[in-house]
Formats: sequence, structure tokens, C-alpha cells
Amino acid sequence: MKFTIGRTAFTKALNTVSRAISTKTTIPILTGLKLVASQSAIVLTGSDADISIETTIKADNPDNLLAVESEGAIVLPARFFTDIVKKLPQDTITLEVGENFQTMITSGQSSFTINGLDANNYPHLPEIQTNTSIPLASDLFKQIISQTVVAVSNQESRPILTGVHFVISENHVMAVATDSHRLSQRKVTLEKSIEGSYDFVIPGKSLTELSRMIDDDQEEVSLSVTENQALFVIGDTLFYSRLLEGNYPDTGRLIPDSHDTRVSFDAPDLLAAIERASLLSHESRNNVVKITIDPDKKTVTIYGNSPDVGNVEEDMEPNQVEGNQLEISFNPDYMKDALRSFGQSTINVDFTSALRPFTLTPTEDSDRFIQLITPIRTF
Amino acid sequence: MKFTIGRTAFTKALNTVSRAISTKTTIPILTGLKLVASQSAIVLTGSDADISIETTIKADNPDNLLAVESEGAIVLPARFFTDIVKKLPQDTITLEVGENFQTMITSGQSSFTINGLDANNYPHLPEIQTNTSIPLASDLFKQIISQTVVAVSNQESRPILTGVHFVISENHVMAVATDSHRLSQRKVTLEKSIEGSYDFVIPGKSLTELSRMIDDDQEEVSLSVTENQALFVIGDTLFYSRLLEGNYPDTGRLIPDSHDTRVSFDAPDLLAAIERASLLSHESRNNVVKITIDPDKKTVTIYGNSPDVGNVEEDMEPNQVEGNQLEISFNPDYMKDALRSFGQSTINVDFTSALRPFTLTPTEDSDRFIQLITPIRTF
Repeated sequence: MKFTIGRTAFTKALNTVSRAISTKTTIPILTGLKLVASQSAIVLTGSDADISIETTIKADNPDNLLAVESEGAIVLPARFFTDIVKKLPQDTITLEVGENFQTMITSGQSSFTINGLDANNYPHLPEIQTNTSIPLASDLFKQIISQTVVAVSNQESRPILTGVHFVISENHVMAVATDSHRLSQRKVTLEKSIEGSYDFVIPGKSLTELSRMIDDDQEEVSLSVTENQALFVIGDTLFYSRLLEGNYPDTGRLIPDSHDTRVSFDAPDLLAAIERASLLSHESRNNVVKITIDPDKKTVTIYGNSPDVGNVEEDMEPNQVEGNQLEISFNPDYMKDALRSFGQSTINVDFTSALRPFTLTPTEDSDRFIQLITPIRTF
Repeated sequence: MKFTIGRTAFTKALNTVSRAISTKTTIPILTGLKLVASQSAIVLTGSDADISIETTIKADNPDNLLAVESEGAIVLPARFFTDIVKKLPQDTITLEVGENFQTMITSGQSSFTINGLDANNYPHLPEIQTNTSIPLASDLFKQIISQTVVAVSNQESRPILTGVHFVISENHVMAVATDSHRLSQRKVTLEKSIEGSYDFVIPGKSLTELSRMIDDDQEEVSLSVTENQALFVIGDTLFYSRLLEGNYPDTGRLIPDSHDTRVSFDAPDLLAAIERASLLSHESRNNVVKITIDPDKKTVTIYGNSPDVGNVEEDMEPNQVEGNQLEISFNPDYMKDALRSFGQSTINVDFTSALRPFTLTPTEDSDRFIQLITPIRTF
């Protein structure tokens, strides 16, 4: 195996597959990356068994400066090899595999010889054969991910809650996540209806990593799903994630269908006030912020308190206040996560009582997106 | 005590004094910052006992938006208070100290009450009374610091070596640091001669912190020295550092006055090659890079090796090679630190033998700056 390649294109591909490679793995060969050279392209693969990423550098794209002299395959230590490529002196580099998987990397006057591994020992990627692939607009898909992963659980005690639950049928996509203290649900409509229906749970970590890989210039991501794997195709890159096994809880029944008190805010204003209140609640043993609502006086006040350090009180100027009087306490960090996912929108915060979950929804298109937070009992 | 102040000016001053404040201190009140309000200004002080910083916000500068209603002093929890000020909603904030050192901070509709401490319990700053202050051009002084602190020791076994040794007399400034494996010495000439002579050692940490505080728009720093303290005046800010006690070793005799082999490089080219070689030496138990010099063939070759991972070999194209043949090994991290301090300069690397220290000097103005590195015996 021998080829010459442009350092810029090669570095970009190495960074892409490195996202899947962990130094903490029980399978030593997975700390390496697999390189396969054919006449028309080289293919790089990285994997941590949960996520696998495969990207192709094609010889017919002149930007890649790729010329394959002889075909073959090798596994090289990922982090170390990537560091070398980044520091090489010239714009092109030559890689040649010799005897005993010894690999020579040359660029200008610099010549590295590193110990590779037999590519035959590298695990095979999951095989995904479906006839259906679901096209998703990249920016919308990234939004779905960012709006739902905030509510994913990071506790391994209920593994199914560490993922985002997707339900797709006809032209409807619903994504929901909950850690049992809060919930985030997003619905979108596809441009075209798809065949069949899908119900699966993807690990939150996979989605976060996937989201980072989708460049702004990438218009579409296509999704295929089998029993235990999802495959996302992003240009010349394939992203595989295992699916979580088990039944996702029925979250529909958690969302209240009525409210007794409603307050409307610009999301950034409420976020700034909660951030200030949380400065104090974070200094306290129980991280709690209190809000009092008086619809008669049209006042909403936010309180944070730490016995050691002091307290904060802030009178808000909500766009609208209606319904019953209320005093309710909650974890401000959940509130901050929820509010950030609304960006610059105007939102309704809907309460039923001090011990029942409350919801945040955009004032426009309110059935598309809902965040739910369980309050904290303080009395 | 009550005053109103612009948030921007206040935040800048808080960031300045916070540089001296450590959360790890054995004196609890030093986790706070002292605020003193007089009619004409407020003065902020932070200290970790080694370093103290005092900065003044003047009422006569309209940019500060400062109006003092009543005078007084208070100590507030530094990190927490700074976080609050940064997150306040309006451009101006009002601070008022009430009973029992309770301090109210208001901005717009947001109102914080935090527990302050009696300013009378805050330690006094060192008193520095000298008639002489030494003016130093800011950019040159920052260069002296960055070029010498690289060689400062971080081992507390010989405390005196954790500082930079300054010797100042007439119009000469000499700064030198060594950790006994390497040495860096810088000399500069002052525009005007000063009265008296100075010989003192400032902790490297103080200099690093000081250097970060000197903005590019600050033309001059003035230095005063007493028996155990140095004071640097930077505009409206005073920076105090304790001096290290003890005799600094005589470093002059360590610098060789002749060489048997000389190689000339552009510093960035040699740096890049050493960085590549150190990728491999870092994977090895003994972090060593080897260089061979053959003046007859005009060749210089750099080697890095790790039994587990592989090796690298690079033929350099030096500007000049003269003297005896040589093979010498060294710690590449020392070499990288030294080379970075030369920026884009062309340098001479001068050797006597494989076991004697070698030096790096700029080809122009070579007596101004010298870096010395002790080789590693590998045979």
C-alpha cells in the first residue's frame, strides 16, 4: 500500500474519524484508525463500538491531491498518527506500508516510521441494508438534537433514558427526551411522507457527536435505521450509532393539557434573571430558585437565596400574566437549559400548581416544541 | 458607604485585582476583595500574600460613570461578587453597605444582598518608600519576562531558583533564570542611567501574572524595590510582589566562552523539526532527541525514537555548519521552550562537546540574549 495525499484533506478526514475514537477502550485495536487504499479512493474508519465513522477521500477530486500507487490496508495509532500528520512540513505527504506493518510517512525532509497493525483484525462495521432512507434538512436536524439532548439523562441506572426517542411515520417526526425531572419534546413535519414507520432510541452522546460533524454547508443528512443500528450519511461520511434496547416510557401522558397560571416572557430576559438568581442558589446546599406570580398586580418576582452568602430578588416585567396566584420553586439549571433551547423566542410558561410540572412553549407554533420541568417541594 | 458606577469600568477593575486573589489561601479574608470609597475615587485591592494588586477608579474620568454618595470600606467575596457584577442587567450599578456589613447591589430591577466583612480586618499592603523608580518600556519588559521565565524552576527544593534574578545598575539591566538543567539570560540597556544599583530575585509566578496585566496600550511600567518587596506601577494600578530571600547562584561561570561546533538556523525551522521529533520522544520512557552534525558534509540530522511506536529522522538544511563533528542528545521540551523565545530570529547553536552545555544566541546582537541547555548522556 502506497499513496500520496494533500495534508489539508487528510487532516480534515482524520479529525472526522477521530471523533469516534476513544483512548479509553477495552478493545486495543479501536485506539487505532483503519486506512484502506483503493485505486479510486482511500477510506478512513474510526470506532468506539458505540459509534463508528467512515469517511472517503476520492482521487477524482483534485483538491485532495490524492494519488494511489498501490492498494492495501493498515491500522495506525489514531491520536499519534493524527499529531504527526498535522506537524508535517509539506503540503503533501506520502504513506507507504512495508514489512511487518511498518509504515513510513514522509513529507519533505521528514521521515517517520511507525508500527501499524494488521487491518484484518479490525472489527467489521455493522451492515445496514434498508431500502428506505429518510432525508432530513441539516439545520433543522441539528436544532432537533440541541433542543432534546439537554433533557437526556446522564445516569446509567435507567439506560433507556440516556437516549432520545424518535417516532417517525408518514411526514411526522417526533423526538423526545426525559431524565424524569424534565422533558423536552420536539415535532417537525417532513417535506415528503416516507414509507413505513420507525420507533427507536439513539444515545444522546451519539447525537451530540453527530451534530458537531454536520457543517453549515451540508444541506441534507440521510438516515437509515435497522433493528439495532442507525446510519447517517453526511456527504462522503457515514456515521453509525447503535440504538438503545428497551421500551421508552410513555411520555405523552406526562404533558399537562391545561394550565391555571400563564406568564409570557422573552426567553433571553427570563434566562438572564434565572442566571442571576442561580448565582446564589449555587452557593446553597439545595440549589433552588423561587418564583412568585401575582396576576392581580401583574407582578412576577424571582428569588435566590444562600444562608452563607446572601440573597437576590428581582421584579420581572413579563409580557403577560394571567390565572391564579402561585409560588413555585425549581432547579434553576434545568430552567436555564430549557430557556437556552428557545433562543430569542417569546415563550409561555404554564403552571397548574406548586407541586405539578410546568411547561415552556413558544408563543408561536406552540405544539411544535415543549419543555417540561418538575418543581421542587420546599414546604 | 454608597456609590454608583459604570459596569464596564467596574468589571475591568475587578478582573485586574482578581488576578491576585486565590481561592486556596490559609487566610480566609484574602478570598475577598477590599473596596474603599472616597469622594474622588474607589480603590480595589486583592492579595494572596505573595502578590497584591491595588487599582483605582477615579470619579473625574467620565467613562467610569462613578458617583460616590458616602465614603467607607468593605470586603466582599471576590469570585462571587465579580460573577454578580458581570451578570447585572444595566450599564450602571449601585452598591450600598448597610448594617452588619450587609451589602446591597442593585441594577435595574435586580437587587442582591450579600454578606460582607469588616475592612479593618484586611491585611495592610507592604509600604514601599523609595526615592528611586526605574522606568521600563512595557513591550521590552514583557519580552524580558517571557524570555527568562521559561527557565525558572518549578521545584520548591531550591526556592531561589523559582525566581528571576535581576541585576540593575547605571543603564544596564540583566535578568537571568535557571532550573539547573537550562538557563536563560537577557540583557537590556536603559535609555537613562539610574541612581544606585539593585540585585533582587522576583518569583517567576509574579512576573507571569504581571506580564498578563500589561496591556499593549500601556507605554511604561515603573519599578521600585525595597529589601523584600517590588512595586510595579502600571497606570492606575499598583502591583506588589514579595522578593525571594537568599543568594542567587553565580550563573556567569556557567556560560561557555568558546565553541567547537556551530550551526545556524532560522529558529522556526529548527522548532518545527524538534516538535516533530518530540512526538516520538514523548512516547518513550526517556524523553530524548538526538542531533548529529557533520560539518564536512554540511549535514545536520535530527532523530526521535520510541521502541513501542516507531522513529523519525529528519535532514535539516541549516544556514551554516562549521567546526567538529558531533552527536548530542537533549530534552526536546527544553529546546522547544528556548526556540520559541527567539521568535522569527536567525540563531547560532554553539556546542563544545557531547556532555557540555550548548547555547542558543541570536546571530544579530548575540550578547543580548543567551539560552543554555545541558545535554543528556545516552551512552
